[in-house]
Amino acid sequence: MLYTDLDECINVLTKLIINKTLHNIANNVGGPFGAGVIQIVDSKYRIVAVQSNEVLLRDDPTAHSEMLAIKEACKVLGKKMLDDCILVTTSRSCPMCLSAAMWARIPTIYYSEDYDKAHKHGFIDDDIYDYINGRNHIIKEVRIKNEVCDKLFAEWDKKTEKEMY
Amino acid sequence: MLYTDLDECINVLTKLIINKTLHNIANNVGGPFGAGVIQIVDSKYRIVAVQSNEVLLRDDPTAHSEMLAIKEACKVLGKKMLDDCILVTTSRSCPMCLSAAMWARIPTIYYSEDYDKAHKHGFIDDDIYDYINGRNHIIKEVRIKNEVCDKLFAEWDKKTEKEMY
Repeated sequence: MLYTDLDECINVLTKLIINKTLHNIANNVGGPFGAGVIQIVDSKYRIVAVQSNEVLLRDDPTAHSEMLAIKEACKVLGKKMLDDCILVTTSRSCPMCLSAAMWARIPTIYYSEDYDKAHKHGFIDDDIYDYINGRNHIIKEVRIKNEVCDKLFAEWDKKTEKEMY
Repeated sequence: MLYTDLDECINVLTKLIINKTLHNIANNVGGPFGAGVIQIVDSKYRIVAVQSNEVLLRDDPTAHSEMLAIKEACKVLGKKMLDDCILVTTSRSCPMCLSAAMWARIPTIYYSEDYDKAHKHGFIDDDIYDYINGRNHIIKEVRIKNEVCDKLFAEWDKKTEKEMY
């Protein structure tokens, strides 16, 4: 279905997201987070993905709702670049999902709750953001000398026909 | 197989990663990036995941080698927290993969090439890092008022038995 009004499309999508996420919370599928993707088609809007967090069910710390929504949208649309799409999330995307949106070339994210809300409920969004901004050391990145790894870029350079992403 | 020496384990893992990644580059599976996971068991080391980038094959912008390696390690070890593991990558993890490692509670990442190398070859690692640090606007995050989203946290709070992640 195509919507002429973006707000209406976001409202419908949000209802779908909320229902799915409430179901997932109740069934120990994942945390209190949901997301969806809207594609813009000739100045109209259509929902192409509705997802909720599935970290617990999958035993996969990367199964955030935005990651699943981006994957679903790519599958539905048969492409990896979502530059004609909008990401809608119930909570502001953590740096993982935010970066995934940028890799997918999504130009805009609409979010409802900010990082602090998730953090207040025991999720480490804020800590990750702080690490990337140099304000804590919850992970250690160590550079090692391994010259052979540069060979991968050399092989990549040699390919005459290659798709960038 | 258990290694007593971490350097030796990293060297063996790196060879496996390089072979897999060269194969993937040649077959248009993905870009020039590979990663693996080592688990520490009684002060010894064992390889639990070997992956390469699969963005092109899967049409999935999130299929970076570290994401796949973290997923593989979680599956192999049957758990979502990899606090006894080391992530090894051929290129420094982009903010998506770095954040994924933090969500998985991986304490240390060993990397060979830095961000600038990937960026020089046309990958947007640097741009994403710069956005998160407030130095560009390659994506727009817009807060919307949607009170109903707060309901998800309320439901989460009500659950008496729940697993945090």
